[in-house]
Amino acid sequence: MSSKYKLQIVYDGTNYGGWQVQPNAISIQTMIEKALTTALHMPMAVFGSGRTDSGVHSLGQTAHFSYTDPVDLRKLQHSLNGLLPPDIRIKSLSKATDDFHARFSARGKIYRYRLHKSPIASPFTRLYAYHLPYPIDLPLLQKAKEHFIGKHDFTSFSNEAHKGSAANNAVRTIKRIDLIEIGEEIHLEFEADGFLYKMVRNITGTLLDVARGKIPLEEIPKILSAKDRRKAGTCAPAHGLFLVEVIY
Amino acid sequence: MSSKYKLQIVYDGTNYGGWQVQPNAISIQTMIEKALTTALHMPMAVFGSGRTDSGVHSLGQTAHFSYTDPVDLRKLQHSLNGLLPPDIRIKSLSKATDDFHARFSARGKIYRYRLHKSPIASPFTRLYAYHLPYPIDLPLLQKAKEHFIGKHDFTSFSNEAHKGSAANNAVRTIKRIDLIEIGEEIHLEFEADGFLYKMVRNITGTLLDVARGKIPLEEIPKILSAKDRRKAGTCAPAHGLFLVEVIY
Repeated sequence: MSSKYKLQIVYDGTNYGGWQVQPNAISIQTMIEKALTTALHMPMAVFGSGRTDSGVHSLGQTAHFSYTDPVDLRKLQHSLNGLLPPDIRIKSLSKATDDFHARFSARGKIYRYRLHKSPIASPFTRLYAYHLPYPIDLPLLQKAKEHFIGKHDFTSFSNEAHKGSAANNAVRTIKRIDLIEIGEEIHLEFEADGFLYKMVRNITGTLLDVARGKIPLEEIPKILSAKDRRKAGTCAPAHGLFLVEVIY
Repeated sequence: MSSKYKLQIVYDGTNYGGWQVQPNAISIQTMIEKALTTALHMPMAVFGSGRTDSGVHSLGQTAHFSYTDPVDLRKLQHSLNGLLPPDIRIKSLSKATDDFHARFSARGKIYRYRLHKSPIASPFTRLYAYHLPYPIDLPLLQKAKEHFIGKHDFTSFSNEAHKGSAANNAVRTIKRIDLIEIGEEIHLEFEADGFLYKMVRNITGTLLDVARGKIPLEEIPKILSAKDRRKAGTCAPAHGLFLVEVIY
């Protein structure tokens, strides 16, 4: 009988091809599987809560793995952090229930998108915030984001083809989009029961297009109901995005 | 007749051998001289307010250069930022008085040392804060830092040999050392009329040695009066240090 273990992972996505194993790029998942394989002396697989794109960062990506023997949690966490490069850290390692699955047990996720008002990218934030090359109307952004809160079909804000049998598999519920001003930065924090591929970046890009006067505010409900990706605005760059937490 | 120009420079010191031109490492100064030489089509030299070590960062290093022709400041700043790598940014470029000298006109400097309470270095702060591998006694650190404020001979806290003719060339006046707590970080901000080579890092290391119980508090006045580098504590790592501002 094997036991399940839960990992919380912090990473700087700059140097990776995203979470998931893929050709021609090193993935975070691969790095963690390699470290686990070395630490536990057997081939190991980890299952993440979902993919993050190349350049997207994590403060709380969650994954699980199964292992037959008892594990000294503190020691294994220490070993993994010794084996992993310094831009990937295991924040926590804990025993999970037998039915735990990092992806299917998730009840929700929190993402944060960092915007910076200065068009001159600072050496310290250039990889962790999108430095806005144009001024934006913040009260207008406030109004615009309200249209996205609640239960909607987000097909227009997803880069995924929804060919599945369920008619409404692009329906998600956004609980909140908080606008937080921190010094020269503006953060948009999204909490939802789940997110489609590139959904946060597509919504953020559309919000910015409204806030810079490129898309009229009243267009948003029409874009949502069109269920057509081509109707929405630009996709905000990956490097401003952080997966903050996976909620179980 | 040539005019003088003042540059304020922000940089991530991680990938450089410090401010000053030196063998076997790329210096920030070299990068700026190269960019100026390209932008102004003639060999250019810049003079900084002082050196920063390899790995030390800057939010406001200041330098000057002389140039004979009139300069479109906005355009030149833009060109320089285009020519420089993204971890070095020209924050401001302005005309200076003819007698301005980045080093000799400086009336003081502000440095900040960033400490992080978590021993597990986060991917996002590992290059910009010293993650303390041991717990520290903050009230004790508060008491310890008071010993350094004011006019002292800082020979014990400098890695420089003071062979100069002036007997008291290691005398500096520290106006303030502020202890600022920001979330999991503790910042020490130093303002003085000037700093000796490695002085901030040596004082910070000694403060930490006191705060972790390695050096008794009452030793500090003795270390100061010994005027001997070997009496003081360890030198704190370079990557936690930021040159915040040069005061003119």
